[in-house]
Amino acid sequence: MSTEAAPTRGVFVCFEGGEGAGKSTQSRLLVDRLRADGHVVRPTYEPGDTPVGAELRRLLLDPATGDLAPRTEALIYAADKAEHVATVVEPALARGEVVVTDRYVDSTLAYQGAGRTLATDEVERVARWATGDLRPDLTVLLDLDPTAGLGRFSGRDRIEGAGAEFHDRVRAGFLALAATDPATYLVLDARAPVAELHESVHVRVAELLGGRR
Amino acid sequence: MSTEAAPTRGVFVCFEGGEGAGKSTQSRLLVDRLRADGHVVRPTYEPGDTPVGAELRRLLLDPATGDLAPRTEALIYAADKAEHVATVVEPALARGEVVVTDRYVDSTLAYQGAGRTLATDEVERVARWATGDLRPDLTVLLDLDPTAGLGRFSGRDRIEGAGAEFHDRVRAGFLALAATDPATYLVLDARAPVAELHESVHVRVAELLGGRR
Repeated sequence: MSTEAAPTRGVFVCFEGGEGAGKSTQSRLLVDRLRADGHVVRPTYEPGDTPVGAELRRLLLDPATGDLAPRTEALIYAADKAEHVATVVEPALARGEVVVTDRYVDSTLAYQGAGRTLATDEVERVARWATGDLRPDLTVLLDLDPTAGLGRFSGRDRIEGAGAEFHDRVRAGFLALAATDPATYLVLDARAPVAELHESVHVRVAELLGGRR
Repeated sequence: MSTEAAPTRGVFVCFEGGEGAGKSTQSRLLVDRLRADGHVVRPTYEPGDTPVGAELRRLLLDPATGDLAPRTEALIYAADKAEHVATVVEPALARGEVVVTDRYVDSTLAYQGAGRTLATDEVERVARWATGDLRPDLTVLLDLDPTAGLGRFSGRDRIEGAGAEFHDRVRAGFLALAATDPATYLVLDARAPVAELHESVHVRVAELLGGRR
């Protein structure tokens, strides 16, 4: 394979789950481990990991922005995704790198679906268009009872103010997405020890990577 | 009608056309005239006539932003429209006001179509979703040979750098949109005298307003 002009396409791994499920910890552990294995890895996240995405994220989270119309919010998140896929994810995959992202389209669908102000199929259509329908090779869903997740920290942003029922719907949304295509999901109980979760993730990603370097 | 609890829905008028066709002049003249006729009028424009829209417009036009991916740009314009319709246009129409906007969905379609980086039907689907498919009661298209329009000023932003062929395609795009639904368009030759154009616009809008106050 190394004699080909174009590199083998990389692998796209997403971490998904509610607040406090340990996505950033597990992303970091996976990135470090894959680098130790000799892979070129691009760690990233949504929203905000591009110059314009950071501005959009700031707009979304700045209290001065006030309440946005539901479609405005969905379209700004979609714009962030469009830029992220076009300028970060796709180029890295084309170079043969492993892309590990903290949140992607499932987060949009689970949170928007739980909010129930917009039809989920419409939000999905916009998000799929934004991302050119790029799907992860693997999505690791860190599944957690919202009550446990919320116990890990105190109100960092307005999402946490939404109440237990909302977070139950978010969790159900993630699980429903995983059920639609089980082959590309690894659903883990986020209450398991960090090291144990990491091993499960690494085994699965190593399978995907096969003998690659 | 004045004894009804809810006011009669307002009327939505758009000005469209290329750069230098006189949209802002004609918008202003119409707004002043309708006010003199006793109507409550909400003058507005796209992009940028909401707090978040102004931020998005700044992002789009700031040279520091650099080149955006085509879908990012389309989605940011769509977010501006979503906020504009939800927080400015629809509330004013619901109050029975006359809304006069300088640019709306047709501008997006004509410019994006001319750029040809994205499929126009896809951009239209996103823009229609953003606006809840709200259509103008009347679109005034100020049609102008691009060479004449560009002669009226010197390079204000990057749009003008695009060359005559691009602007020919923009013009053709506007005319094609007008042809799809002639009953809701007033196509005028923008080279006509300002006062004459204004009279044509006012006559048509007055018809729409009927005996309303």
